Amino acid sequence: MPRPPDRATLDRLKQIVGAGGWTDNPDEIAPHLVEWRNRYQGATPLLLRPASTAEVAGVVRACAQAEVAIVPQGGNTGLVGGQIPHPDGSEVLVSLGRMRRVRSVDPLDNTLTVEAGCTLVEVQQAAAAADRLFPLSLAAEGSCQIGGNLSTNAGGVHVLRYGNARELVLGLEVVTPDGEIWDGLRALRKDNTGYDLKHLFLGAEGTLGIITAAVLKLFPRHRQVETIFAAVPTVESAVALLSRVRAASADAVLAFELIPRIALEFVTRHLPGTHDPLPGAPSPWYVLFDLTTTRAVAEQTVAEAAEAGLVSDATLAASTSQAAALWRLREGISESQKPEGESLKHDISVPVSRIPAFMHQAIEAVTRLCPGIRPVPFGHVGDGNLHFNLSQPPGTDRRAFRDRGPEVHRAVHDIVAALGGSISAEHGIGQAKREEIRRYKSPVEIALMRRIKQALDPKGIMNPGKGVA
Amino acid sequence: MPRPPDRATLDRLKQIVGAGGWTDNPDEIAPHLVEWRNRYQGATPLLLRPASTAEVAGVVRACAQAEVAIVPQGGNTGLVGGQIPHPDGSEVLVSLGRMRRVRSVDPLDNTLTVEAGCTLVEVQQAAAAADRLFPLSLAAEGSCQIGGNLSTNAGGVHVLRYGNARELVLGLEVVTPDGEIWDGLRALRKDNTGYDLKHLFLGAEGTLGIITAAVLKLFPRHRQVETIFAAVPTVESAVALLSRVRAASADAVLAFELIPRIALEFVTRHLPGTHDPLPGAPSPWYVLFDLTTTRAVAEQTVAEAAEAGLVSDATLAASTSQAAALWRLREGISESQKPEGESLKHDISVPVSRIPAFMHQAIEAVTRLCPGIRPVPFGHVGDGNLHFNLSQPPGTDRRAFRDRGPEVHRAVHDIVAALGGSISAEHGIGQAKREEIRRYKSPVEIALMRRIKQALDPKGIMNPGKGVA
Repeated sequence: MPRPPDRATLDRLKQIVGAGGWTDNPDEIAPHLVEWRNRYQGATPLLLRPASTAEVAGVVRACAQAEVAIVPQGGNTGLVGGQIPHPDGSEVLVSLGRMRRVRSVDPLDNTLTVEAGCTLVEVQQAAAAADRLFPLSLAAEGSCQIGGNLSTNAGGVHVLRYGNARELVLGLEVVTPDGEIWDGLRALRKDNTGYDLKHLFLGAEGTLGIITAAVLKLFPRHRQVETIFAAVPTVESAVALLSRVRAASADAVLAFELIPRIALEFVTRHLPGTHDPLPGAPSPWYVLFDLTTTRAVAEQTVAEAAEAGLVSDATLAASTSQAAALWRLREGISESQKPEGESLKHDISVPVSRIPAFMHQAIEAVTRLCPGIRPVPFGHVGDGNLHFNLSQPPGTDRRAFRDRGPEVHRAVHDIVAALGGSISAEHGIGQAKREEIRRYKSPVEIALMRRIKQALDPKGIMNPGKGVA
Repeated sequence: MPRPPDRATLDRLKQIVGAGGWTDNPDEIAPHLVEWRNRYQGATPLLLRPASTAEVAGVVRACAQAEVAIVPQGGNTGLVGGQIPHPDGSEVLVSLGRMRRVRSVDPLDNTLTVEAGCTLVEVQQAAAAADRLFPLSLAAEGSCQIGGNLSTNAGGVHVLRYGNARELVLGLEVVTPDGEIWDGLRALRKDNTGYDLKHLFLGAEGTLGIITAAVLKLFPRHRQVETIFAAVPTVESAVALLSRVRAASADAVLAFELIPRIALEFVTRHLPGTHDPLPGAPSPWYVLFDLTTTRAVAEQTVAEAAEAGLVSDATLAASTSQAAALWRLREGISESQKPEGESLKHDISVPVSRIPAFMHQAIEAVTRLCPGIRPVPFGHVGDGNLHFNLSQPPGTDRRAFRDRGPEVHRAVHDIVAALGGSISAEHGIGQAKREEIRRYKSPVEIALMRRIKQALDPKGIMNPGKGVA
């Protein structure tokens, strides 16, 4: 069991990172102790900001010797509290924000080697500067850090085409819980020499070590992207449309997002400058998708889908600014829910074919629990990943609705589990779902994860109380 | 340390799998004890052929209790001896060949759930029957089994587009070294609930458990594939051509293979019905590539590459039979090397940009060691993966050349390591490279792998003496 750091340990840690590498000033630490939705509040005696992998290793070694727990933190944009230290103030916080070098860009290899503290936008920009694409893209990209993206296996809107964050990594550099440096910074597409350690650290939420750098995969930039906003009669037709569009476009679907009518209403009501792109006849559902094909192929695909009855109306963006306006409708959904009152949120996935069943069962269940509740389910239908958000019934008490949270979450998650789904598709376990997940994971699976945790971090100093194990 | 099975244990194992599920007849066992190149010869008192996951679990549980070692075996097509038991006859052999059910095909989910004993061709056919593509493709596909493909993280010609075998898996069912069943058969594109156990078992060469079933990713079938055979002046131009073709085709490159002049000569000399498709002017290098674009895009891409000086001559297949004939030139290389005498083979990868440097250094080194040696380096240049095969100098002693193996391998592998590469890109470690790999892996990495092995298989009964850990 880890224990609070004594004065000697704190002094040693300060010495390892040197001046500028630490602070114990509560005002400077404060922004690192709360996450942006204000759900988790932590405490720490010391914020360390190492500037190199060697300094990270020194810090972890000293903590391992003293059996002091460490919480690694990236851009502090996580949604499940994985980056927030325990409120008892026994844990040291390690921010990777000073490690932000782009170590190399290799266009011929289609690789980029970056340090953990680079923001996602910086990574995207470094790729673009080499006429390449780094396809990970998500709402927090201006402030989230790549180390955090990798430690949480981030998702986003391009997973359908490029996979989750873990699939965009060729190699990693990790400081292990012993304070050793594992140099796995390989830029290889094929390497069958032993267990795949990188996949163990990716998505481990900092519980098995600290990712300090990564070799990322780059791709050719898209020469042409066609953005289509289409009205579809049912969720079933959205799923069938995806299948048809993938086949018709030679699998050139970059993103494919489901939007319910209520979300479009929320966005156009609350976000200035937005409007319904298909004002003629309101549809219960819409999909917004990007194709990396010619305009002719995009038009033909949409026309054929309309003939097949899968699409009732559609518009293709005529310019990049029109495309941006269409995407604003999708990206503004969370924001536009705020003025509508309290929300209960779920980040779930099911097999794509089961999305209609999930939607039907979950909407019925939450409506039974809270009559008048307003489901706003949207998101990455191509990945089977929905943000099943629920706005409170209009005119009811905000707190009373919030208090129904556990009951509603349980009902939704039980349906997800019965359909073979996941109660955390993108966001991870963190603190938020650590108890909840035990209801759904088999004892065999939990035991395997605990054995791995015990094997790599026997002292339990790496981000304790987070994740499954 | 595992020990040889006593009679009571053998009887118990026979009882678990029942009649038809085992044999101790040496004639029936014999084909399972030698691999096809005749490099490894094993022995076993008992071949078990369980028919279900429950039977596999029963077998492993009994072996765990008796501390008897197990060697799992698929189609016995592996090239590094991972599937062959120890010659001392102390290990039980478990063949998955009777577990060959396709458990489900879900076209809307683009998933296929199969048991480990299905051959790769059967998996491909089940996908095709649902109008879908399972893209893993390699020479042994008629006899290799999907369980073996996943346990060895197989590669093949479509890795460039679709990734290695591990990237084609959504979920796994695994019998752990305790004989417990881990049901990880999830058909989810996104699931961030704990450590990624599946990637630990994938590519572990049966040392952490036995894969019994998998949920595989399917893709739309290609409506059109254009096959191009192009002469390129240098290895550098082959690498530059790949980069250009990826960008020009919206990343629609399905395969991209390098072929040296000598390989074309071997194939056309020894394989009936083959001929040089560009007989006008012999080129030192060729590439064979498949594009999933229209013919017009393929033609334009080739024309522009020719203008840029990257291609000196090229032909596009005018029919599927012409395309097959071009691919025969690539696939026949290993076969056509046999009549040329002894070969020393390497399965290496380097970052794509370093292929020219590797080629230059490695050819120089082996020529210095063996004057007259004939390098036949070919393969998956888009993945940085070359089969750096070396044919003996004509007219020299076969055995004398074979005896130079260790020295030649060492020279080649040292160059690979210095260039940041891997000495086993596709084939794994098995028995073949277990010692060799220690020269190139860091102690930190080996220690991490050993901890994982120890954590999951503390009795060391799963395929001992294979792999790194």
